[in-house]
Amino acid sequence: MGTPHPNDEHWMRHALNLAWKGQYSTTPNPRVGCVFVRDGVAIAEGFHVRAGEGHAEVQAIAQARAQGVSLQGSTAYVTLEPCAHHGRTGPCAEALVATGVARVVAAVLDPNPLVAGKGMAILRAAGIETVQGVLVEQARWINRGFFSRMERKRPWVRLKVASSADGVTALNNSTSQWITGPEARLDGHHLRAQACAVLSGIGTVKADNPQLNVRGIETDRQPLKVIVDSKLEISPDALLLQTGRVLIAHTEPQLPAWLSTHPNAANIEALNVAPVAAGLHAGKVKTDLLRLLQELARRGINELHLEAGFGLNGSFMQAGLVDEVVQYVAPRFLGAGLGLFRLPEQETLPATLDWAIHSFEQKGRDLLIVWVRNNQE
Amino acid sequence: MGTPHPNDEHWMRHALNLAWKGQYSTTPNPRVGCVFVRDGVAIAEGFHVRAGEGHAEVQAIAQARAQGVSLQGSTAYVTLEPCAHHGRTGPCAEALVATGVARVVAAVLDPNPLVAGKGMAILRAAGIETVQGVLVEQARWINRGFFSRMERKRPWVRLKVASSADGVTALNNSTSQWITGPEARLDGHHLRAQACAVLSGIGTVKADNPQLNVRGIETDRQPLKVIVDSKLEISPDALLLQTGRVLIAHTEPQLPAWLSTHPNAANIEALNVAPVAAGLHAGKVKTDLLRLLQELARRGINELHLEAGFGLNGSFMQAGLVDEVVQYVAPRFLGAGLGLFRLPEQETLPATLDWAIHSFEQKGRDLLIVWVRNNQE
Repeated sequence: MGTPHPNDEHWMRHALNLAWKGQYSTTPNPRVGCVFVRDGVAIAEGFHVRAGEGHAEVQAIAQARAQGVSLQGSTAYVTLEPCAHHGRTGPCAEALVATGVARVVAAVLDPNPLVAGKGMAILRAAGIETVQGVLVEQARWINRGFFSRMERKRPWVRLKVASSADGVTALNNSTSQWITGPEARLDGHHLRAQACAVLSGIGTVKADNPQLNVRGIETDRQPLKVIVDSKLEISPDALLLQTGRVLIAHTEPQLPAWLSTHPNAANIEALNVAPVAAGLHAGKVKTDLLRLLQELARRGINELHLEAGFGLNGSFMQAGLVDEVVQYVAPRFLGAGLGLFRLPEQETLPATLDWAIHSFEQKGRDLLIVWVRNNQE
Repeated sequence: MGTPHPNDEHWMRHALNLAWKGQYSTTPNPRVGCVFVRDGVAIAEGFHVRAGEGHAEVQAIAQARAQGVSLQGSTAYVTLEPCAHHGRTGPCAEALVATGVARVVAAVLDPNPLVAGKGMAILRAAGIETVQGVLVEQARWINRGFFSRMERKRPWVRLKVASSADGVTALNNSTSQWITGPEARLDGHHLRAQACAVLSGIGTVKADNPQLNVRGIETDRQPLKVIVDSKLEISPDALLLQTGRVLIAHTEPQLPAWLSTHPNAANIEALNVAPVAAGLHAGKVKTDLLRLLQELARRGINELHLEAGFGLNGSFMQAGLVDEVVQYVAPRFLGAGLGLFRLPEQETLPATLDWAIHSFEQKGRDLLIVWVRNNQE
């Protein structure tokens, strides 16, 4: 293996910025950027746009060819190990070998068992110097959903919540529109647009009749809408059913008649997910959330955006299935009201912390705090 | 009046940094810094340390004299208008005139009615070019307590609270030690050290028996401790009574016998503050908090650090007497428990916001958010 150069981080940051350009569209594929550098100058670059189109390396090589630029002897920076398998676009590792590139720097190895080091091995076998492990944390973060699906067989779950500074998400009379300001709400749509799927519960559907789609963000992909509705209580008139793909997770033996005759029926699927073992929830029939997540992963869902109410959010939290909490905090103190999520009463303050600050920034008048779970399994 | 120069902000920032060196000690005086500049170089500087010692200008002039530096023709930057009255140290405006300084830049006018523009007038009358209004916001912030006392006849009230990310300050079994980490707790002592007085309530005293002093911070001044204890229920054994100055605000006609025989009796004062008008608090006798604040201002308290419990914090909030909320937010989700402060139930979300973000930063594992009230009267 080769040795890192002082400029590797600089160019990997450049490649990561390219990768982010695919933030709304690459699902179920990972977001990947690639830049070829010679004598300190970027000579070709590319990023993965969407499944079925060229990988980042292929895009960059095509750009070089279109501009008559030789990649011979250059260094390629890729945010994820080049693929080694014959997927929809031939192995990128072999395409890189063919360019005559002298050195390939990958931020992280591909967690996909079809690759997992094989891409780098192909390059080394061809006499190319390889380096891996540059800006690892950033490279994993941009594809935390993809890594989660590959490594844990379930999506990365991001819970989004808006609250007052004293942790109130709704007044006791259920008023919750709008605790946060327009910038925070738009940022929430940006996160929905990044997600492969948006999940909510029947309680929220009944109370707010949300559309659960992406609005105000330029994207040509709408995430899958997933509704946890154990008893299949959703009304055929629910707004979210009218457009886009919808998956309704339930535990009922029989489906209602309207499902097959609904105008958007072709896009609506009712998925029977066995309830959790009896007794776990005091006799209440509850969808097995882990099994639901595993099923979503099987369907290629990397990032799951959880935007539910006090109860369902609490169930995900209690099950230890939330990886990231995105909290928009408004400059208000509301006193009485509904909290962030239902959690069991605690008797002591644990000395160890399950959560840590990932980042924070102002969004308009509100504060955005991103919390991540420590020691993700 | 003179015209601002491009470097004025740079040097005023320098003067503000000097002023902050007096952050723990100048009370009841304001924090002030002064720097003399000639040809783009600082030639003398000073800051106010404590009442009874030289003002910032006098300290800087003394430094120049000690080093044989002439201030003739230089520019003086002061974070507050030079004084015009014969206090404990002759008028600084006249001392500046005597230096032969060519130009004086003041961040803000002194709100003290004994000065309030007179200092600048003395300078102009002596033919010195004057500029005012540079980094006004920062200059008011460093002395927000002094400005509050001068302009509103009451201290600036900073409420400090530590909570989980979901707004819980204590578990339902009262466990609250320690929700936040050591860095946040030390930062809380830094804020206590800045305050002229620290205020708490009898509920907190009974529950936690706090010392309410400054620990872990290098300072030779301990703030006054103020306890709101309407019925004079405090135990003579309470830790906070053992050392330092204590003011007990109450509404009782008679004082307990132990008060005069307490080992620290010379430092303990019982202050009778008339209760609020009957009926306002459902028959409960409650100290009139505004009157208490006015009395504290009369005694030279600029910054009041409020570190009380759910009830008293709520009373200050409901009375509109809190100017700043310092919230340490721990990366925990606790679910059930006590909130930030008792507020009346709200029926609607007001479109206008009473609060705004002032600043935020990480303190160890926790997040520090400073909220300030909009449109302070």
